[in-house]
Amino acid sequence: MEPTRHERGLAQLHAVDGPAGVGVVETLAAAFPDFARYLVEYPFGDIYARPGLGLREREIATVAALCALGNAAPQLRVHVHAALHVGCTPAEIVEVVMQMSVYAGFPAALNGLAAVREAFAQEGIALPLRDAAGAGA
Amino acid sequence: MEPTRHERGLAQLHAVDGPAGVGVVETLAAAFPDFARYLVEYPFGDIYARPGLGLREREIATVAALCALGNAAPQLRVHVHAALHVGCTPAEIVEVVMQMSVYAGFPAALNGLAAVREAFAQEGIALPLRDAAGAGA
Amino acid sequence: MEPTRHERGLAQLHAVDGPAGVGVVETLAAAFPDFARYLVEYPFGDIYARPGLGLREREIATVAALCALGNAAPQLRVHVHAALHVGCTPAEIVEVVMQMSVYAGFPAALNGLAAVREAFAQEGIALPLRDAAGAGA
Amino acid sequence: MEPTRHERGLAQLHAVDGPAGVGVVETLAAAFPDFARYLVEYPFGDIYARPGLGLREREIATVAALCALGNAAPQLRVHVHAALHVGCTPAEIVEVVMQMSVYAGFPAALNGLAAVREAFAQEGIALPLRDAAGAGA
Amino acid sequence: MEPTRHERGLAQLHAVDGPAGVGVVETLAAAFPDFARYLVEYPFGDIYARPGLGLREREIATVAALCALGNAAPQLRVHVHAALHVGCTPAEIVEVVMQMSVYAGFPAALNGLAAVREAFAQEGIALPLRDAAGAGA
Amino acid sequence: MEPTRHERGLAQLHAVDGPAGVGVVETLAAAFPDFARYLVEYPFGDIYARPGLGLREREIATVAALCALGNAAPQLRVHVHAALHVGCTPAEIVEVVMQMSVYAGFPAALNGLAAVREAFAQEGIALPLRDAAGAGA
Repeated sequence: MEPTRHERGLAQLHAVDGPAGVGVVETLAAAFPDFARYLVEYPFGDIYARPGLGLREREIATVAALCALGNAAPQLRVHVHAALHVGCTPAEIVEVVMQMSVYAGFPAALNGLAAVREAFAQEGIALPLRDAAGAGA
Repeated sequence: MEPTRHERGLAQLHAVDGPAGVGVVETLAAAFPDFARYLVEYPFGDIYARPGLGLREREIATVAALCALGNAAPQLRVHVHAALHVGCTPAEIVEVVMQMSVYAGFPAALNGLAAVREAFAQEGIALPLRDAAGAGA
Repeated sequence: MEPTRHERGLAQLHAVDGPAGVGVVETLAAAFPDFARYLVEYPFGDIYARPGLGLREREIATVAALCALGNAAPQLRVHVHAALHVGCTPAEIVEVVMQMSVYAGFPAALNGLAAVREAFAQEGIALPLRDAAGAGA
Repeated sequence: MEPTRHERGLAQLHAVDGPAGVGVVETLAAAFPDFARYLVEYPFGDIYARPGLGLREREIATVAALCALGNAAPQLRVHVHAALHVGCTPAEIVEVVMQMSVYAGFPAALNGLAAVREAFAQEGIALPLRDAAGAGA
Repeated sequence: MEPTRHERGLAQLHAVDGPAGVGVVETLAAAFPDFARYLVEYPFGDIYARPGLGLREREIATVAALCALGNAAPQLRVHVHAALHVGCTPAEIVEVVMQMSVYAGFPAALNGLAAVREAFAQEGIALPLRDAAGAGA
Repeated sequence: MEPTRHERGLAQLHAVDGPAGVGVVETLAAAFPDFARYLVEYPFGDIYARPGLGLREREIATVAALCALGNAAPQLRVHVHAALHVGCTPAEIVEVVMQMSVYAGFPAALNGLAAVREAFAQEGIALPLRDAAGAGA
């Protein structure tokens, strides 16, 4: 039996961000249950579940967009965690955010790095990064 | 002998977008030579030349950001070409742009798809895409 | 039998914008069929179909948002037509756009009025508006 | 005797947001008296005082725009209060904000719902909403 | 006798942009007379007429903001003309726009330079600029 | 011997914002050393070091842009300090921010004035300003 969009969305959300993502949705659902349902169904059940792009690439795109938009710090922190969860390295995430200085300006990149720093601290990732290709060689 | 930032930037620009990218810079240089130099040196000589992230991933990040920002259609078209040039599939590019409906809204995605359509037409890529995982099954 | 999200979305799209809206989706579907489906299903099948807000109010909100964002002129024109279609008066639409000068600045309002002018011309609505409460008394 | 723009603006401000709106302006005036005067005169004395659009519709437009812009959380909270004050139902306000997911993306809507939650808490409005047409049926 | 806000605004508009600025307002007034009046009265009659900042500085601020916002190309062209009209040199204007690459990204600066190029062409200013401190030495 | 870009950037940073600016970069460098280096080299070593525009004018442009963008409050506070440091008067800074109400809307200006208030408090500048041409006459 084919899963519903909601089941597919929850599975994707779990694949993207583990129990943390599911927790975000449950908190939202306590106040805004319909919007929590849409959040599971459209972004995750419809879009992230599509086969044409890997989850690593999807998270790179999302971190880039949220950093560039510059008005979605809570969501950016969530997706830094998600990017790590789907296999992006810390250095790759820092690179994406630094690259946004080119497209959205240095303040957007600086505020993005502040979100990265908070998310890395929660994950126990020390800064500056130490590996050769990293952001802090 | 180590290349200068400018030499490294031109090499990266060529790697990212082939002769088309170099042409864009030359046109710019005819009117604004200093800014053409900065465009080569900082985005390409400093950022794209860094080892921590692949060019495919860099172009995914850039297409996502330009689509989300929504006020840079000419640059988005250039980077759709560049994304193809560094090995993104047409389907991957369409996926990135469709995903922006989640983060920047449907108008940003629709205008991004219009830029994709123009760039694909210049590349001779027919729409809708036909492959199973594509945007137009 | 309950309609599918897609059927409900098409019905809403027709209610909101008449045959013109359906035409926009069909044009989109020729190049990006999956995204055309999402555009029918999420915005119209899920959101506009909800009972908690009238279509007049939904179009006022949409015209306001698109004018304020300032990077979605094609979509703003579509929704000026839609606002008229669901019963907003020309004067009400002009008021919403002028009000955006307060929240998004005079350039956003000026560019919004340019979109209004184009849409009104297609509808045969003469400017300046003549009625007492209008924008051009 | 016709009221001055300032008198008309103060009256509109009171109509839109009651004593709270007047308090915001007084706080502003303590540090920036000229700008406090402009805030009363142009947005309220000129724009909101116009007859062509009802205050309910004006607040729907403003909540939509501030949510879509995504960088004006304090002002969004003020206008959620104002929307309730001029007769919008809690469900209508939640609908407007959820609709912004379509035009400005899910992060804008999520951050808008956070502002709604804060404003509703101050007004003693429990979430999720319970009525049939509400956001949390 | 003290001038009205409208008279003061028209005088400022003339000081800022000469007959061209007045022409823009007259074109606007043919379709949206009330908004044309507000455009004269608030930005020019209230703000530009204030003594605390020179017109050169006001135009530098406006060119910077319009370039950074990136969704107001027609207004940016108008204010490049205005900046020249109040005594900014071509090189200063190019500097302001290039500087926006830092705060709003390279695409904003590139699109700003395109607006500069169009406005300079209408003014008969050749690019690249030749003087020592210019953008094209 | 000509200074390196990095030396020139540090000198400019010191000229623009004194020891405070250097402190910001050192804090950044502890976590993201490469980006701290770019921040010194491109914005300050390349752009601010150019001869075509005075530092007062550069800071007016930056305060205007950051206020208009509305998503860079920490950077706006830094540049209010910098604007004072290079010789802008408090009144000039308030004028620039109030002017942004025209180009980016009243919420952007209000949030900009909040940043001004915080920065002025740290500098011991009392509000409202008292001088004749000031913002609070």
